[in-house]
Amino acid sequence: MENSRPCLRRLRMAAVTAIGFFASILAARPADSATSMDNDLMPVPAQIRFSPGRLRVTEGFTVAVGGYDDARLQAAVSRALGRWKERTALRLDRPAAANAAATLAIDCRGPGHVTPSLDEDESYALEITTRQATLRAPTVVGALRGLETLLQLLSRDADGFFLPAVSIRDQPRFSWRGLMIDVARHWQPIEVIKRNLDGMALVKLNVLHLHLTDDQGFRVESRTHPELQSSGSDGHYFTQNQIREIIAYAKARGIRVVPEFDLPGHATSWVVSHPELASLPGPYAIERRWGVFNPVLDPTDESLYRLLDDFLGEMAQLFPDACIHIGGDENNGVQWNANPHIQAFIREHGLNDNAGLHAWFNRRVSAILAHHGKTLIGWDEVLHPDLPKDAIIHSWRGPESLASAARQGYRGILSNGYYIDLVHPASEHYLNDPLPATTTLTIEEQRRVLGGEATMWSEWVTPETVDSRIWPRTAAIAERLWSPREVRAVEDMYRRLAVVSVRLEEAGLGGERHHDLMVARLAGDRATPDDVQALRTLVDVVEPVKDYHRGGLQPDVVQSTPLTNLADCARPDSAAARNFAESVNRFLFQPGTLDRDQAAGIIRQLGVWNAAGRRVAAFPAGTAPTLNDIAHNGRALADFSAVGQEAMQALLSGHAPDEQWMKTRLVRLHQAGEPGPAAVEFPILPSLELLVTAAAEQEKRGALAPDAWQQHLRAIAFPSAPPPI
Amino acid sequence: MENSRPCLRRLRMAAVTAIGFFASILAARPADSATSMDNDLMPVPAQIRFSPGRLRVTEGFTVAVGGYDDARLQAAVSRALGRWKERTALRLDRPAAANAAATLAIDCRGPGHVTPSLDEDESYALEITTRQATLRAPTVVGALRGLETLLQLLSRDADGFFLPAVSIRDQPRFSWRGLMIDVARHWQPIEVIKRNLDGMALVKLNVLHLHLTDDQGFRVESRTHPELQSSGSDGHYFTQNQIREIIAYAKARGIRVVPEFDLPGHATSWVVSHPELASLPGPYAIERRWGVFNPVLDPTDESLYRLLDDFLGEMAQLFPDACIHIGGDENNGVQWNANPHIQAFIREHGLNDNAGLHAWFNRRVSAILAHHGKTLIGWDEVLHPDLPKDAIIHSWRGPESLASAARQGYRGILSNGYYIDLVHPASEHYLNDPLPATTTLTIEEQRRVLGGEATMWSEWVTPETVDSRIWPRTAAIAERLWSPREVRAVEDMYRRLAVVSVRLEEAGLGGERHHDLMVARLAGDRATPDDVQALRTLVDVVEPVKDYHRGGLQPDVVQSTPLTNLADCARPDSAAARNFAESVNRFLFQPGTLDRDQAAGIIRQLGVWNAAGRRVAAFPAGTAPTLNDIAHNGRALADFSAVGQEAMQALLSGHAPDEQWMKTRLVRLHQAGEPGPAAVEFPILPSLELLVTAAAEQEKRGALAPDAWQQHLRAIAFPSAPPPI
Repeated sequence: MENSRPCLRRLRMAAVTAIGFFASILAARPADSATSMDNDLMPVPAQIRFSPGRLRVTEGFTVAVGGYDDARLQAAVSRALGRWKERTALRLDRPAAANAAATLAIDCRGPGHVTPSLDEDESYALEITTRQATLRAPTVVGALRGLETLLQLLSRDADGFFLPAVSIRDQPRFSWRGLMIDVARHWQPIEVIKRNLDGMALVKLNVLHLHLTDDQGFRVESRTHPELQSSGSDGHYFTQNQIREIIAYAKARGIRVVPEFDLPGHATSWVVSHPELASLPGPYAIERRWGVFNPVLDPTDESLYRLLDDFLGEMAQLFPDACIHIGGDENNGVQWNANPHIQAFIREHGLNDNAGLHAWFNRRVSAILAHHGKTLIGWDEVLHPDLPKDAIIHSWRGPESLASAARQGYRGILSNGYYIDLVHPASEHYLNDPLPATTTLTIEEQRRVLGGEATMWSEWVTPETVDSRIWPRTAAIAERLWSPREVRAVEDMYRRLAVVSVRLEEAGLGGERHHDLMVARLAGDRATPDDVQALRTLVDVVEPVKDYHRGGLQPDVVQSTPLTNLADCARPDSAAARNFAESVNRFLFQPGTLDRDQAAGIIRQLGVWNAAGRRVAAFPAGTAPTLNDIAHNGRALADFSAVGQEAMQALLSGHAPDEQWMKTRLVRLHQAGEPGPAAVEFPILPSLELLVTAAAEQEKRGALAPDAWQQHLRAIAFPSAPPPI
Repeated sequence: MENSRPCLRRLRMAAVTAIGFFASILAARPADSATSMDNDLMPVPAQIRFSPGRLRVTEGFTVAVGGYDDARLQAAVSRALGRWKERTALRLDRPAAANAAATLAIDCRGPGHVTPSLDEDESYALEITTRQATLRAPTVVGALRGLETLLQLLSRDADGFFLPAVSIRDQPRFSWRGLMIDVARHWQPIEVIKRNLDGMALVKLNVLHLHLTDDQGFRVESRTHPELQSSGSDGHYFTQNQIREIIAYAKARGIRVVPEFDLPGHATSWVVSHPELASLPGPYAIERRWGVFNPVLDPTDESLYRLLDDFLGEMAQLFPDACIHIGGDENNGVQWNANPHIQAFIREHGLNDNAGLHAWFNRRVSAILAHHGKTLIGWDEVLHPDLPKDAIIHSWRGPESLASAARQGYRGILSNGYYIDLVHPASEHYLNDPLPATTTLTIEEQRRVLGGEATMWSEWVTPETVDSRIWPRTAAIAERLWSPREVRAVEDMYRRLAVVSVRLEEAGLGGERHHDLMVARLAGDRATPDDVQALRTLVDVVEPVKDYHRGGLQPDVVQSTPLTNLADCARPDSAAARNFAESVNRFLFQPGTLDRDQAAGIIRQLGVWNAAGRRVAAFPAGTAPTLNDIAHNGRALADFSAVGQEAMQALLSGHAPDEQWMKTRLVRLHQAGEPGPAAVEFPILPSLELLVTAAAEQEKRGALAPDAWQQHLRAIAFPSAPPPI
């Protein structure tokens, strides 16, 4: 399920520029200021209060599990100690101690749900004094959540490792906090799933949604209908044993696994082996391209429901979760319109139109699921007055559709705004609230908003790149879904996100680890260390183009095309660009005279970019497809930074260049920044445009208050899309 | 099986200094110079001849398999194309073509051995013209070896990717080219094994030797005696299904899997569940420390042979290889001496002594193995006149024991000199030849020398660090065992090793990828990017202490101690130190006046080290165990480099400091370089000692030829252990 909202590239980029510096002023601060600035916790707990003092973590550290205990809790304690051992290089293997004497006393009241469940109590309380840490939880899952908080609290000072004295009462704001991974378009094997489950546990996400079937692949073993995976998967699918392994791994971390079988559209991989079930005659082959395709199942064919009953019954046994996701999105109607029998069926059954037929199909599927004891969840399009009221609506279209479902009595979760495949910055996802303060829903309707899910659609990710597309941004989404609504200071989020990124890598996620390898490989064997460093500098300041633009710039890419190019190396949310925007904002818009030290820092940065850009521009080009547009982007970076250098010189000299200078420079920045075949963009451009404008308009600076001067510059630099400040 | 030869630290370090620069002059060059300097192949093929012209690799690339074909060959072709796709970002998924039209035509004559075997024909011929590449091989394994060569030949120029026109006839010099991984002391799970099999395939190694049992763990599932692993492994062992998975993964890559069950010593983990089989009464617990321990099985107890028959029979079924390794090393005799019954048994059976009893035991085990169709292989100590002649001797003591076995009619393999756990530089292993040119063995005796094995004993490695301890140095050993004896140019080996390192990381090995994470973690969350960079600079110029020194410096370390410290981050073979030694040698010993540009480079490098050292020296110290000695090593680096800076100034000024200056500086370098609790050493020290000596002795430079001056300086700088030049 993929939206295609208009591209807001320049608007967004300008917004990023503004966000970094002003976020801490503009965004509401959490009620208790100790909740965020004084620690690295992510997600921020519901209540937190620090006291003076530190509990030392030494090799004498002992753990006691009082109250309820079981293998899942023991394994979690053992994993937690293992991660501390890696960080501290301390032996932490003392035998369990009596509760009163232990450094960490865990008091768990009961097992909670045996299978991770939507109504699990995930709360916990953590009290740390200089003498002991006590973790109390009503359920094992609550204890697991508390252990993750405890892991994040570990700090170091000159005397060694410690836990700060603190009192935490915590529970999630939303009960459905998910990550969807599309394993259909690009296959993601079990190792990818497991390491991402580790990442999810670290930031307290609790639903792994596996998008298992789509036009490009049927990724689960059916034993009742093995032709489905044998014809529909190129051999890349999860065996039932692997599914059980994933479920066990997730359960050990208090995470539900919700499978999705996309119906009746996005179903090409079903009809490769069952062309008779499609709405037009076949044959069909696995789809290799990206987009919305015509093949759709024929809801008028009774044999379809027999197959679905077999298959969904089998999956209902395999997956213990209460919900099964049936997709339901983006049936383009082409096949239904072209089949007279189907149109006649619609008329005969008084179904009005294709939407009516889709609703009729969903009722049938819902009955099958109900028979097998499962609740239906589907994308927006399944919402229809005839849909049973216990179904759950998964909103990809927007908060309005979610609110509308809630008003009609349906429970729902939000993914609009959490489309991490569209490579938007973490700040955007972070500020996207399933229930914003401005909601007009009643309290009861609000209760129906269960939470949300980050969606990792996999057109543009491989096992090598998927970690860097999911993380660390999904940690910001995890905080949105766990922490109180008021926790929304963007600058502080980014500060903590940098720490949690390190923890994620330590837990086995490979975003940064794969990154260096990819850049070196792209530079090639003959590249010198300086070449590789220059390419790395370029990669650090570009981002993949946003939304669905890459498909337009690289129209020939299909499922088997390698994704090892500049856009694959580039990160979605450039820290270098964010830091530069902060520096430029601080330099230009603080009161008083321009700060020479700050200017020197900006000029130094522009010099580094210019040199790197010039070096990359000299990379061998010719017809080597991976290199062509890299050199072009090197030239662009050299050019941008030279314009920035001119602007800085003009600002420091105190002599404003004329308007013509400004106009030509702005046009140059704008044109040179248009993405080419490498499908990357330069998020540093808005900052450079501000510098150029400020240089030309510097005489007005003295006459205007900082805020007004800023407004003035922005109006000139971004005339078509004035960014919010 | 661990040797404990005397520490040669300073000798070795001095040797390193000499090797880099002089290797290309001193070492014999391969007969055909095109074999090494003109390409990145590792191991170097037996015969290679380049022609002008290039075969372009484009998206039109097609493969045809003519002659014999099977699933193993198909899978290998598919993996090869997958790796090229990653490197080229080209779609390489054209359907198979007819032989004549294909870009790559593979002509394989037959399957070869169904189970990888010691007498497999691994030869292949590769002809590349500007029109087509043709790979011919008598067996599938030969074709796999040729595919790896083909993968390494891929290059890039301004027009894109290409294969050079070349003619290669290749086969291995030795038929046993192994890597032993000890999974007993530190458990190494299946992922570690699989990625190392990928690395082995890349450099044409063909035997994975799994050291499965030792005092510290029993790491394989027995179904006849499950108490062995359930009491002896802490739950960390390979299930039989996992063993089958490893064997299949290895077979797909033409690699044998030889299991080792260490008997009768190194057997503590056996007697945890079977104390009655030990030579003294128990109880016994899994050993947590490192070293040689007393527990040894009692060869006089008939019930031992019943258990061994059950267990080895089961393992003989599980492992298809013709050989089973029974260890046999390092029985210290303490338990046998202390047991009067055993001593009486020796006398009654006329066995002379413990060695006679050991031989008697080996005959019994050998008979059991023969009954199950397996050949015995064991460490040096199993060599005894009574040992059946088909047994294989695995030499850890030295080339003499290997030669002696060959003279007595035994086949043997060499591991002495390939102990990669002792963290010696690749150059040492590389020049260690199982059959050196000076061998006095007859041709027939030489045939009994089957090859060698790199041994990764795991006292000091975890899954996080094991890759960086095995690779890339094992690639140099692989070349020694595959390529002609004359291929031994160290400088060229290091040049190609750098390229193969990238390929190994691409294949999934994690040495470098884990490295950055480990350094960042060691620096801690509060470290600035500059702090991390400074620590990285320090890590780059240190090496873990060699041989068995670490145990002396970190005596409290046991199995559960985290290995996440400075010595674990440090690489065994510092490239920074090697490059510095080359620069210093070039600067000091080339004819003519001192080169100011070279001097500037050395001074710049010393400045970077000095700044990094001073920054690390300021890291918080106090009682945090991971940081204490890091700061100390930072101070040492700052101090060394300051001494080097003084020496460079003196050299450039032309005024020699007095002898007292030299002596105090040499003492300072010597004392400050003594390894502390962090267990690292500075391989840059010999170069600095040469600089100090050269500064003090510079007036003699004009009077002596370069070689004589070098001899003079070395005699002063390294009086106690004059290094070879």
